[in-house]
Amino acid sequence: MKIRENKAHKLNIAYLGGGSRGWAWRLMADLALEESLSGMVRLYDLDFAAAQENEAIGNSLLQRPETKGKWRYQAVTSLKEALSGADFVIISILPGTFQEMASDVHTPEEYGIYQSVGDTVGPGGLMRALRTIPIYVDFAEKIRAYSPKAWVINYTNPMSLCTRTLYEVFPGIKAFGCCHEVFHTQDLLAAMLADIAGIKGLTRNDIKINVLGINHFTWINQATYQGTDLFPMYRAFVDKYYTEGFQLAGEANWQDDVFRCANRVKFDLFKKYGLIAAAGDRHLAEFMPAKMYLKDPATVEQWRFQLTPVRFRIKQKEDNDRFRSRVIAGEEQFPLTPSGEEGVRQIKALVGLDDLVTNINLPNQGQMEGVPAGAVIETNALLTGGQLRPVVAGAFPSDVQNLTIRHIYNQETILQAALKKDVNLAFRAFINDPLVQIDPQQAEALFTRMLENIKEYLPGWVN
Amino acid sequence: MKIRENKAHKLNIAYLGGGSRGWAWRLMADLALEESLSGMVRLYDLDFAAAQENEAIGNSLLQRPETKGKWRYQAVTSLKEALSGADFVIISILPGTFQEMASDVHTPEEYGIYQSVGDTVGPGGLMRALRTIPIYVDFAEKIRAYSPKAWVINYTNPMSLCTRTLYEVFPGIKAFGCCHEVFHTQDLLAAMLADIAGIKGLTRNDIKINVLGINHFTWINQATYQGTDLFPMYRAFVDKYYTEGFQLAGEANWQDDVFRCANRVKFDLFKKYGLIAAAGDRHLAEFMPAKMYLKDPATVEQWRFQLTPVRFRIKQKEDNDRFRSRVIAGEEQFPLTPSGEEGVRQIKALVGLDDLVTNINLPNQGQMEGVPAGAVIETNALLTGGQLRPVVAGAFPSDVQNLTIRHIYNQETILQAALKKDVNLAFRAFINDPLVQIDPQQAEALFTRMLENIKEYLPGWVN
Amino acid sequence: MKIRENKAHKLNIAYLGGGSRGWAWRLMADLALEESLSGMVRLYDLDFAAAQENEAIGNSLLQRPETKGKWRYQAVTSLKEALSGADFVIISILPGTFQEMASDVHTPEEYGIYQSVGDTVGPGGLMRALRTIPIYVDFAEKIRAYSPKAWVINYTNPMSLCTRTLYEVFPGIKAFGCCHEVFHTQDLLAAMLADIAGIKGLTRNDIKINVLGINHFTWINQATYQGTDLFPMYRAFVDKYYTEGFQLAGEANWQDDVFRCANRVKFDLFKKYGLIAAAGDRHLAEFMPAKMYLKDPATVEQWRFQLTPVRFRIKQKEDNDRFRSRVIAGEEQFPLTPSGEEGVRQIKALVGLDDLVTNINLPNQGQMEGVPAGAVIETNALLTGGQLRPVVAGAFPSDVQNLTIRHIYNQETILQAALKKDVNLAFRAFINDPLVQIDPQQAEALFTRMLENIKEYLPGWVN
Amino acid sequence: MKIRENKAHKLNIAYLGGGSRGWAWRLMADLALEESLSGMVRLYDLDFAAAQENEAIGNSLLQRPETKGKWRYQAVTSLKEALSGADFVIISILPGTFQEMASDVHTPEEYGIYQSVGDTVGPGGLMRALRTIPIYVDFAEKIRAYSPKAWVINYTNPMSLCTRTLYEVFPGIKAFGCCHEVFHTQDLLAAMLADIAGIKGLTRNDIKINVLGINHFTWINQATYQGTDLFPMYRAFVDKYYTEGFQLAGEANWQDDVFRCANRVKFDLFKKYGLIAAAGDRHLAEFMPAKMYLKDPATVEQWRFQLTPVRFRIKQKEDNDRFRSRVIAGEEQFPLTPSGEEGVRQIKALVGLDDLVTNINLPNQGQMEGVPAGAVIETNALLTGGQLRPVVAGAFPSDVQNLTIRHIYNQETILQAALKKDVNLAFRAFINDPLVQIDPQQAEALFTRMLENIKEYLPGWVN
Repeated sequence: MKIRENKAHKLNIAYLGGGSRGWAWRLMADLALEESLSGMVRLYDLDFAAAQENEAIGNSLLQRPETKGKWRYQAVTSLKEALSGADFVIISILPGTFQEMASDVHTPEEYGIYQSVGDTVGPGGLMRALRTIPIYVDFAEKIRAYSPKAWVINYTNPMSLCTRTLYEVFPGIKAFGCCHEVFHTQDLLAAMLADIAGIKGLTRNDIKINVLGINHFTWINQATYQGTDLFPMYRAFVDKYYTEGFQLAGEANWQDDVFRCANRVKFDLFKKYGLIAAAGDRHLAEFMPAKMYLKDPATVEQWRFQLTPVRFRIKQKEDNDRFRSRVIAGEEQFPLTPSGEEGVRQIKALVGLDDLVTNINLPNQGQMEGVPAGAVIETNALLTGGQLRPVVAGAFPSDVQNLTIRHIYNQETILQAALKKDVNLAFRAFINDPLVQIDPQQAEALFTRMLENIKEYLPGWVN
Repeated sequence: MKIRENKAHKLNIAYLGGGSRGWAWRLMADLALEESLSGMVRLYDLDFAAAQENEAIGNSLLQRPETKGKWRYQAVTSLKEALSGADFVIISILPGTFQEMASDVHTPEEYGIYQSVGDTVGPGGLMRALRTIPIYVDFAEKIRAYSPKAWVINYTNPMSLCTRTLYEVFPGIKAFGCCHEVFHTQDLLAAMLADIAGIKGLTRNDIKINVLGINHFTWINQATYQGTDLFPMYRAFVDKYYTEGFQLAGEANWQDDVFRCANRVKFDLFKKYGLIAAAGDRHLAEFMPAKMYLKDPATVEQWRFQLTPVRFRIKQKEDNDRFRSRVIAGEEQFPLTPSGEEGVRQIKALVGLDDLVTNINLPNQGQMEGVPAGAVIETNALLTGGQLRPVVAGAFPSDVQNLTIRHIYNQETILQAALKKDVNLAFRAFINDPLVQIDPQQAEALFTRMLENIKEYLPGWVN
Repeated sequence: MKIRENKAHKLNIAYLGGGSRGWAWRLMADLALEESLSGMVRLYDLDFAAAQENEAIGNSLLQRPETKGKWRYQAVTSLKEALSGADFVIISILPGTFQEMASDVHTPEEYGIYQSVGDTVGPGGLMRALRTIPIYVDFAEKIRAYSPKAWVINYTNPMSLCTRTLYEVFPGIKAFGCCHEVFHTQDLLAAMLADIAGIKGLTRNDIKINVLGINHFTWINQATYQGTDLFPMYRAFVDKYYTEGFQLAGEANWQDDVFRCANRVKFDLFKKYGLIAAAGDRHLAEFMPAKMYLKDPATVEQWRFQLTPVRFRIKQKEDNDRFRSRVIAGEEQFPLTPSGEEGVRQIKALVGLDDLVTNINLPNQGQMEGVPAGAVIETNALLTGGQLRPVVAGAFPSDVQNLTIRHIYNQETILQAALKKDVNLAFRAFINDPLVQIDPQQAEALFTRMLENIKEYLPGWVN
Repeated sequence: MKIRENKAHKLNIAYLGGGSRGWAWRLMADLALEESLSGMVRLYDLDFAAAQENEAIGNSLLQRPETKGKWRYQAVTSLKEALSGADFVIISILPGTFQEMASDVHTPEEYGIYQSVGDTVGPGGLMRALRTIPIYVDFAEKIRAYSPKAWVINYTNPMSLCTRTLYEVFPGIKAFGCCHEVFHTQDLLAAMLADIAGIKGLTRNDIKINVLGINHFTWINQATYQGTDLFPMYRAFVDKYYTEGFQLAGEANWQDDVFRCANRVKFDLFKKYGLIAAAGDRHLAEFMPAKMYLKDPATVEQWRFQLTPVRFRIKQKEDNDRFRSRVIAGEEQFPLTPSGEEGVRQIKALVGLDDLVTNINLPNQGQMEGVPAGAVIETNALLTGGQLRPVVAGAFPSDVQNLTIRHIYNQETILQAALKKDVNLAFRAFINDPLVQIDPQQAEALFTRMLENIKEYLPGWVN
């Protein structure tokens, strides 16, 4: 990599999960639209064909007139090839197939446990973690071997545990996790300023927030617009829309799009705890006790969000695959529009071409009080001059601290269970999840079934 | 107070709750049987008549030939009289009447929440805390005013919050909390040595343990007899008696005595978590998720312990009152037998006449890792030469840490709610208790009823 | 204060030490040149005439064509008047007169102790702290009473102890300390890039650094330009100029200006410790053992910096006073040029009109490891949206940690001594200062004389 | 090892430095006099002949009528033989010869630096550490390999760094350091009770103290006899004997015995800092700035203690060797008297036969506030039932904290320098030692000479 005339040339990016549909495509578009960066992206994926298809798409962008950043794409067949010489490593993988995801999400439903996402906490998040951690152990070892100085950006869930695993195995790694859920909450606050105060045209960058917590259960305890405290206005906003909910203008209705919500969970959490929860309702709900928002489908509907069935994921993938085929066949044009993600801005800041303050997942090194050192948490961080440092975010009041710390220690238990391949330890984490409020015998039966369903991803576990 | 010839003379003890039946009588007996201490006990109680009756009993002991420690007793009508000049302050009170206790213990049953004791955690423990904390605020202020250098020994539940309140209000106080639950677990280990290894005649003092956790949810992570690790033997013991349970020889059957248990909960916790839980099963069960041991009366019976109905408490009090009348009337003799409690040994150590290592409730000042500074925890402490210092107990593994820290932060929330008279904050603690796994609407209804039931003890709370 | 159209109107600033020459004038110029801020500055000074003169100058700027920010100035006679309604409080005072400063700086010379500044550490810094702390106790109490929500910016030395005192007395204060020494080190690094790499035209804002330590003994452990690590280049730069020193182009020669230096101390510290010390050599030298850079005037000259005699300060003040008279008399024009200070940029960020990352003195709340919570340290901080939060700066290696922590604990001792008016405690801090390596008897004689010299500023101290 | 009838049989002790004169002989005597322990001691020493001589002496004790504990001694030629199967490892070695010790102690004198011992801190302590640490790295590795569960008791200086090295290399080690300096301070307090209060016949066990700090610079911040605070009495005692000093009855005069002192340094430290320093004056003096107690031989004499010349050590060794020869030749009888050391009591407690509270050197795990985790500090610890746990000792006031933390970080720097074989880092620790207040050029010359003198013990260091 070379910086010349305020541009970074010959950047090397290793993309693990390079056959990915969503994240990879958004990155390709953003890279093409950014004039100050250029170089090579190596795409590694267990599904090599998918990586090759992305290679084809990526390289085709060089021909497009809108493209300002010149990037070449190459599908590779080994982590070693992908990582050697990398300045950046981007990871977005799916651990296992939709079959395992179906077990994560839907098997608990037979036992009365409903999960709106099932990839972070709850029974599904735990199982997903158990099969993801060994993969990340391997990633960490390979990164240490082939690109120890590269910046590593993780997009895979469970975010906290993926990032935590990288540091556990290779403490010197320069890894962090990124998630856009907080952005949407800033969007909501911008919409609130229009709705309540008549201030139109703001974007999330106008809303200054202090973020703290863990991924998908992040909270805002200070929010300002031009120095004005937004909490009183949010209180009025919540009161106004508590019953009906509120959605951004132009956004698909929560009933039509599983990723949308009416923010009622968010509003309810504010009424209860006085802080602004900063993730989509479908994520937030999973961190709270089962009966609160996920008691049953009727309750979920009342709170105006949806469960995310795996059949939806499958359909989404099929749509994406068809879209990719058409693009490669030249039947459809790959859209070059900004994704709203921050990956490329982060890369720009980390090569030293820009400054950025944004929410980042990092091991605790002082940015939060009351959280064990090393636990991966999400707060603001400053990216500048090739450096990344968290901003001190402070502490929670004891009530929200309690909701959060429970997941932090559970994640630590899950990590230990995965590393030691310890079924009993994994079960102790399982029964301590707030979504698992069923009878112990039932819990054990469910746990055993779910573990059995993913056993091929747990080599070395004694059953 | 004067030490002469290895005896402490003219000790002044203030007994708050001095009309008490259980704790006060045990102390009287132990003081009478200890030859190295003598002095005056001032008995303060809202029920002055009860204090006077204890005065009569206490002074009558001077006539008994077995009496070695000469103590005079005096019922007083104000905290100021009780505390002025005190070297020690002993507190064992009942906050409110059996009517409030009945609300604590039995109202939740109507909502499907069963509590075996209801004085520490759970809905009952919370309500009891809310009405106890204001009383302890007053105690702390009066102790600061009238006896700031006295040692303060607390026996009242909820132990952690009573002790915590004293330090919150008067940080310079020399207070600590005492509880005998750990002793019984040492007795159990002594019985195990007889049962498994054939080593008879041991007492709890022969069993060396490391204790850590919070009151009534205390754990042993190291136990030895003459240097031998007792954990392998405990594993065998648990296996042998897991199904049937085990009771000490000579002890009343758990079916006949609400204070007894067959230790099945303790054994189950060992199988799950690998540490020895060190309290009676009826206490332990309340700290765990509702469905585990307290799902319903049938489950409780399966685990071989009993719920403690308030009608039992009332009967116990009536029996005690009748006994006291008979003693005063000379119809029955007050029994002078050692109580098994450690209060008097502690006093002896704290005046400088002895050394003692025992489990003590104190604010965390380094004795446990992973617990906020100042949270009241139970570990071993060294009492020697008039000094009291906790022994470093270490840390829990992440799973037991998680079970425990939840109660620690909940207690902190309850304290803040009580000090600020904040209904909403109290409710947030309420719904985060592991026994409260009911629907949120139900939880709110229950909370409101219970709060209403004790409102006369919550002056200044806006309803 | 109102924000309208991206401008802050009706800002109220209280300036304590409002008769000041340097800092006040620089602020006036910067305020006049900033178009997005306007309002009122209230000038409070023990020397009311000086405040009135500054009022006259300040108000005269309204007539100047270059003036973009409209500010009115008013000299007031009480802290209450100055503080009531203030959005910002700026403090730059001289504690005592040049007579006390002469004692601080020159009395130690009679005992072989040379100080290049004498206002931060060393015998002079200690004495200055003892007489400043009571003044800041008063400030803190008045701020709590009259403007508890105002941002408080301190420029007075000793910086750490002034800021620490404000927080000790009023923990809820929103105070921080600012210093430009780090800026000059960034300037030096920019000059280095021109000198070594031929990259011209950079300013300090192009140099991204991580700052940690205490005021005037701050260190840079990471420095980049466009993502490139500057440490290897600095090593070459130090080697090149170690013997002769290096000064910025256009800067007065160190022999002609007491505030200048040839950076040889800085270079030597880099050779010894491997980190970039980030303050002027005259400050840095005072934190190190006496014999290293301040053994005697000849040694100082060898290291190519100067001691700052008080006669220089007196002359500087006389020059300033003459200048002020001429300005008021209309004989000379007040120069409206940017000061290079950041006060106005900070105000802009703190009212919510800008973002800024800069070095700031704040109590430790997680930004440094290995430093007691609450000790005032200097690291980067993020100012955005009316919020101020330190950036996590990490930890020193054990050797630099040791040099620094010694001053941190000494400052804590000095604070306690000043608050308790404890001569002995002050002396213990005195003999533990690295500049005090003389015989204990001599040290005691010196301490006693210096204390006597400032006794009128130490009311309530028993002599 | 087996416990039978309250006795431990077949204990295996590995004695590293088994040819030692002082410590080994005291242990032999104490073992012989303790009836509850028996077993085998394996003596390992670079000087195998010396180990064989001790073997002969040790085995001869079996014939003595006073001998109650039956022990066999065996000189061995490898660490592996010594350690395999050991229950306890005792280490007391001399790193290098008297030639290196002479360099440690006397070379600095040529530069005006006087050391009263030269084995803990100061230039001598540093050099001794540099050559000891590699030896302890080897010990730790061998203990991990051959006796990972053994208790390891260290007597070698520098105590803190020896113990710290063991934990650095093998974190799971069960090692601790023991030192008798605190005992002598308890003896002094017992003598004070006789002198001031007329209470005769007390021993150090009657004096209850709280100990904190680092080895040889340990402090007592609470001391009681039968619960009575001894600090007021110590103040009077210090006043009474400040000028003349005080020695225990029966003790050799400080002028006649280099190990004795008149406690004037201890008294002066109390007058200055208000705490009771708890080591011999010759140790304490070395931790303080050079000019305070060790300016020159005349100052040392004024403070009434002696420097310890190496010629004295040599003579002591020669005397001991002659004594050993006579014992082996049967010309003199090995004296079987209690040593006053606690090693055997500790062993008894650690096999589970006794309880003991005593001062112990251990990594910080909560027992002291304000000290980095893992730094080796000296506080009370509880030894019971085969367990060893520090007692929470609290924190220093900021002034004594500052004196102490300087050495703690210096030791950390020395450890890192030794492990990395980093000359520059070692020099940074050297010039930060309070005894090194000489010119930097002189300091460098001295450092270089001293390092040269011990270079054969620093394999792998690039010169």
